[in-house]
Amino acid sequence: MEPIFEKLITTTFAVGTETTGTLQQQLHARLRTAILCGDLPAATRLPSSRAFAVQQAVSRNTVLAAYEQLVAEGYLETRRGAGTFVSRDLPDSFIQSNAAQLPPQPSSPMRPPQKQASHPPTGLPAVDAFPLDLWARLSSTAWRHASKDILLYRDPMGYKPLRRAIATYLTAARSVRAHADQILIVSGLQQGLTLIADSLMNARDTIILENPGYGGLLRTARAAAPQVAFTPVDQLGACVPETTQKNNLLVVSPSHQYPLGITMPTARRLALIQWAKATNSLILEDDYDSEFRYRGRPLNSLQGIAGGDHVIYGGSFSKVTFLALRLGYLVLPEHLIEPVLKRREATDSFPSIMAQLALAKFISDGHFARHIRRLRKIHAARQQIYIQYFNRHLSRYFTLEASPAGLDLVARPTLELQQSGTGGDNIWAKAAHNVGLSALPLSATYRSQAAQQGLLLGFANFTANEVRTATHKLAQIMLSESGF
Amino acid sequence: MEPIFEKLITTTFAVGTETTGTLQQQLHARLRTAILCGDLPAATRLPSSRAFAVQQAVSRNTVLAAYEQLVAEGYLETRRGAGTFVSRDLPDSFIQSNAAQLPPQPSSPMRPPQKQASHPPTGLPAVDAFPLDLWARLSSTAWRHASKDILLYRDPMGYKPLRRAIATYLTAARSVRAHADQILIVSGLQQGLTLIADSLMNARDTIILENPGYGGLLRTARAAAPQVAFTPVDQLGACVPETTQKNNLLVVSPSHQYPLGITMPTARRLALIQWAKATNSLILEDDYDSEFRYRGRPLNSLQGIAGGDHVIYGGSFSKVTFLALRLGYLVLPEHLIEPVLKRREATDSFPSIMAQLALAKFISDGHFARHIRRLRKIHAARQQIYIQYFNRHLSRYFTLEASPAGLDLVARPTLELQQSGTGGDNIWAKAAHNVGLSALPLSATYRSQAAQQGLLLGFANFTANEVRTATHKLAQIMLSESGF
Repeated sequence: MEPIFEKLITTTFAVGTETTGTLQQQLHARLRTAILCGDLPAATRLPSSRAFAVQQAVSRNTVLAAYEQLVAEGYLETRRGAGTFVSRDLPDSFIQSNAAQLPPQPSSPMRPPQKQASHPPTGLPAVDAFPLDLWARLSSTAWRHASKDILLYRDPMGYKPLRRAIATYLTAARSVRAHADQILIVSGLQQGLTLIADSLMNARDTIILENPGYGGLLRTARAAAPQVAFTPVDQLGACVPETTQKNNLLVVSPSHQYPLGITMPTARRLALIQWAKATNSLILEDDYDSEFRYRGRPLNSLQGIAGGDHVIYGGSFSKVTFLALRLGYLVLPEHLIEPVLKRREATDSFPSIMAQLALAKFISDGHFARHIRRLRKIHAARQQIYIQYFNRHLSRYFTLEASPAGLDLVARPTLELQQSGTGGDNIWAKAAHNVGLSALPLSATYRSQAAQQGLLLGFANFTANEVRTATHKLAQIMLSESGF
Repeated sequence: MEPIFEKLITTTFAVGTETTGTLQQQLHARLRTAILCGDLPAATRLPSSRAFAVQQAVSRNTVLAAYEQLVAEGYLETRRGAGTFVSRDLPDSFIQSNAAQLPPQPSSPMRPPQKQASHPPTGLPAVDAFPLDLWARLSSTAWRHASKDILLYRDPMGYKPLRRAIATYLTAARSVRAHADQILIVSGLQQGLTLIADSLMNARDTIILENPGYGGLLRTARAAAPQVAFTPVDQLGACVPETTQKNNLLVVSPSHQYPLGITMPTARRLALIQWAKATNSLILEDDYDSEFRYRGRPLNSLQGIAGGDHVIYGGSFSKVTFLALRLGYLVLPEHLIEPVLKRREATDSFPSIMAQLALAKFISDGHFARHIRRLRKIHAARQQIYIQYFNRHLSRYFTLEASPAGLDLVARPTLELQQSGTGGDNIWAKAAHNVGLSALPLSATYRSQAAQQGLLLGFANFTANEVRTATHKLAQIMLSESGF
């Protein structure tokens, strides 16, 4: 029996502790949850039905029936003479979003957390779900089928087939008005903001950012513009800026405000567009993680509502595929294409074909849509699991706000913790980080004295076992520090 | 018989017109030249020895002996039951640089020139020699062997294994003092110059460029700095700037001045370094095509001489591999790493892993060194061929200056052409472009009234047949326009 599975089944799969369903149904549900949450990674070999039956103290037929059902659903696959394995490529149409409703039981730590070394603090998708083999195959195929002309491809807007694929996707999925000629391929929103500021803004113009907001963009804005101002975020999202100065560049995240997770209602969206028209300002709509909406329908994009004249829409593939890809895009209003493009040509010539070629194929062959759908379900399941463990261990100290979208959750300190005078969110974040969680102090995202305290927790790249272990450890630390 | 070969042998391989060597030696030399110059592309199927013998009116044994010798030398390969082919991967140790001494005979046009559409004007290497299949295989292998950690790789200096490979290469081949921690991966020299100017220069500092010089850098400099000045190029290369102002950034190409091809002697190099120290200025050493030196040994780099304090060394892989790769590097003096890196993080975060992963493998597996050696020999052969055809057809109008390095040749108008009042180099370049040559007017590289007239001709991406056809056509145009 594989060591990893042996550990899992002795801790996670004690069949019989669930109160609903037959033994077969319970076993089926637990295995499915473990697969969805990543506790049983792709290609893991399952124990033989005989060994598993003995271990679980159920009949072999019960195990066989559960395995069979999971094979039929696409979670497992059998290989002749080799046994039963977790599928390498889960067919997402089989994945049910309620799969995570039966969480595995908590237990003692099993794997030491090793996440903190190379990870950015929050906002990672389920990296373990990325189809690395498929990507390698696609890259290779794309190169093999390319003509030598691809070696000289030098369009400063970016690779045309990729821009076409993005236009199709945005029109269908994000109600963005875009054709390929408006789409500028960039390395990410930071390059996008730099290009916009350098090409369209004068020395006296101001970049206005959300407060609280993403620190990376603040750094970029400070590097790009002499003046940076802030607009507060209320319960409807970014407020309409009070300035009556002309020619501002407002950067907002209406789909899912960072870090508070607010979805901006239509009325506020309209008010922002009206302000932009009145002050001759531009809005950069940062739709950084709009692909990850787990409940409800997304609202129309600002760009779609505005008709495109005052809004530049920006998105990135790095969160939806993998961080190191570094590919994003701007959807530019027609009259802004020329100046922005001129700046790109002067500072960066044109983007490399390497990543673009692979991504274009990934999208046009349907893998991108499939990958998003799969991630959405995995993330939804992981969010539930995360909330359950976090609340079980840490509800004395923090109140976790559920979010219908995104890759982060906000945890607010309880009144008891606030009154205990124990640390502050910098200290709590450090403790969370040390036990392997992905955590940022909420106060670090504020640009003013009135910073709120809390934790910004990335949940999507954690398996159930990792969360269980880490939240348990964090609770012990909180207890020893706070004394309650 | 393959149509392409049939054409070639009827036009290029009329054995017996050479005056030296046996028939077998002549046949061998002509085939080898055709392979080196790209007239017989890799994987071309050769006619059977019997058919070729009939066509050439020689004995079959003569053909067989020539084929055998070429197989032994690695130019040809036989496949069981399929015939004899031009090798896919010419072993460069077998390639002899005097191979081009027997040029094919001129003839009527065979292939319409189709180069102008997507090509930048000059400076392309032999794109047809790039091992596309190998690249596809390496990319795929690199991904298959990568761990999931690669998906999160986010070093703002660039992929560490790539930086290590570059440091090793530069130390050995370019006498540059570099370790991996000094190397910043950029998309190219334009991004490099932008980052340097934005992070190290104040509003009153000046970028000084060579005159004549590369237009792309001028555009970048104008976008990055308020003041741009020029230093003239004399027969020793860039002159020491006359300014006594402090804190300038001088951009020079001492290995092979663009466009004039001058290699700066050591005395001038020392004078530039002395000036930089006296004025507290920085020098950006643009070593854009140092890999392509065909005769003689390269001089020590400015950076190597200066000891690194006042010189940033910059290079690019786009000319040595392929244009669309977009990978280059800066070698930064220790004390400049932090400010430049900070700017990179603010504007561009970190470079994509895609191209870096493939290139790192390409270098560390030895393919890069092999590819450069092969290109050098192909380019040297093509330069000779180019000069021969150009002089044969156009010596009445232009004097071609041979160059020991680079990818371009400078053609000056003859006194007769100057006195004829026919056009100017803009007109000549357009005519050359229209017949399929890669040509820039020399005057376009000058930033002052005293612009010299001439053509800057990219030779390395042209096969003998293409050059023969195009120069012949250009001569006809020049004749009809000038009347002599």
